[in-house]
Amino acid sequence: MSMAADQLSVTLTALADPTRRAILARLGRGEATVSELAEPFNLKLPTISKHLKVLQRAGLITQARKAQWRPCRLEPAPLKEVEEWVEGYRRFWEASHERLEELLRELQSEGQSKQEEKK
Amino acid sequence: MSMAADQLSVTLTALADPTRRAILARLGRGEATVSELAEPFNLKLPTISKHLKVLQRAGLITQARKAQWRPCRLEPAPLKEVEEWVEGYRRFWEASHERLEELLRELQSEGQSKQEEKK
Repeated sequence: MSMAADQLSVTLTALADPTRRAILARLGRGEATVSELAEPFNLKLPTISKHLKVLQRAGLITQARKAQWRPCRLEPAPLKEVEEWVEGYRRFWEASHERLEELLRELQSEGQSKQEEKK
Repeated sequence: MSMAADQLSVTLTALADPTRRAILARLGRGEATVSELAEPFNLKLPTISKHLKVLQRAGLITQARKAQWRPCRLEPAPLKEVEEWVEGYRRFWEASHERLEELLRELQSEGQSKQEEKK
């Protein structure tokens, strides 16, 4: 396996930051300019620009090339790739949920037999 | 928003590496010892140990405390959290898929009208 940065690794690195995920959540409500994005996070422009570059490189956002107003928009394709990857593990968390339910049923029936014994 | 490492950021950082994702895929096929994990990746033990520590800290794997044979196992709970987060964006990639289909239909009907014109 190559250790070079594959698309999924680049996407996950970009998403592994709460500010960048909050920027995506904001863009999920509609396009926004860089200064509109900087404001709610109380971030200086160089800081927000750095975060936006990471998101852009991952293909998670694009920035329109309109002259003055250059809004950023969410690009969902890399998120779909994350979803497809994580879906491959669904059976594991569903299985562990079933194990918990089974354990709970066992504990409940144990509790009941103890109650019966007392009678 | 706190910049401290939240669980989701820790999980995504752990997943943002192809070797660590390959280790999870291997553990998805069943428990394995550290040396069993090191072998297929041609990694030295210190390197694999470092990767396993990152996965352990994220709660993605646990290591049994049996005396000699200490197998690692996959823990799916953090993966479920990733899935729940990314599901929030499903409507965006589904919408963009619909836009592509619409575009395709437009191109096809354009092609058809050009064919009609030629007749």
